[in-house]
Amino acid sequence: MDTFEAITSRRNVRAFESRPIADTDLDQILEAARRTPSSRNTQPWDFVVVTERERLEALSEVWRGAWHVAGSAATIAIVAPDGDRAAVQYDLGQVTMTIMLAAAALGIGSGHALVTDHDLAASILELPTDRFCAWLISLGYPADGPLRPIKRPNRREFDDVVHREHW
Amino acid sequence: MDTFEAITSRRNVRAFESRPIADTDLDQILEAARRTPSSRNTQPWDFVVVTERERLEALSEVWRGAWHVAGSAATIAIVAPDGDRAAVQYDLGQVTMTIMLAAAALGIGSGHALVTDHDLAASILELPTDRFCAWLISLGYPADGPLRPIKRPNRREFDDVVHREHW
Repeated sequence: MDTFEAITSRRNVRAFESRPIADTDLDQILEAARRTPSSRNTQPWDFVVVTERERLEALSEVWRGAWHVAGSAATIAIVAPDGDRAAVQYDLGQVTMTIMLAAAALGIGSGHALVTDHDLAASILELPTDRFCAWLISLGYPADGPLRPIKRPNRREFDDVVHREHW
Repeated sequence: MDTFEAITSRRNVRAFESRPIADTDLDQILEAARRTPSSRNTQPWDFVVVTERERLEALSEVWRGAWHVAGSAATIAIVAPDGDRAAVQYDLGQVTMTIMLAAAALGIGSGHALVTDHDLAASILELPTDRFCAWLISLGYPADGPLRPIKRPNRREFDDVVHREHW
């Protein structure tokens, strides 16, 4: 799919069809993610791809807003080195966007979930003690119909957000 | 350009041709940026697009690594509400990636710059006191030849970074 079509078609999807995502498509999304730039190329991320239903249901308990993970076809857990958790957030935002746009290019919807119960997430994902699960990105085919370019996004107007040469 | 071609062609570009970016291309990049998701759709960003050479040269002084801004065809200053500067970094990472992939889709290279001299950046961009300039994204046609898909990116190996079902 064309890049701008992927950008304008991406939306938050939290209800998914039951059909699975092909392994080749999942791998293409992960290959895209791996290429994301990061501060000094530190690549402060690992990706745990979860497709087992029981594990997805367990993961959906790590935050009250993570319920959509339970019904996803797959969820990518973004895991980072533990330490200064705030310092890696910019890079984790970059990798999140790559994942979501790569997914949209394949017609696959995605939704963010925060993690608040880090101990539970670490236990489900069997993480080493020097890592933490920062974000979950649920993936699947949207239950309410395919992704299509959105004409009027729920966003601030272009002329409100864009300034020329100075504020 | 196809989304995966944009993803695999994007690289850090810090030396640019002198030719300008068409206004319609700049606006398409900004339209893409505006559509980026954010926590509770807060859209904690404004974009100041700078193309005036003197202002670009002044901006290149806001961090020792921002020298490439001076020779860019345009630079997008990502401005955020001042306050908890760490809390917005994840969303700013998402919008950065959208900008860079939208640019790559148009054959336009991009490079990150941090801001450390916030007072200087605020003065050059004429920012109100409740905003700060968080990042600069320099844009332009790469001086060392067009963006092309990168076969072997300088990244951790796929099997090192991807885990299946659990760590």
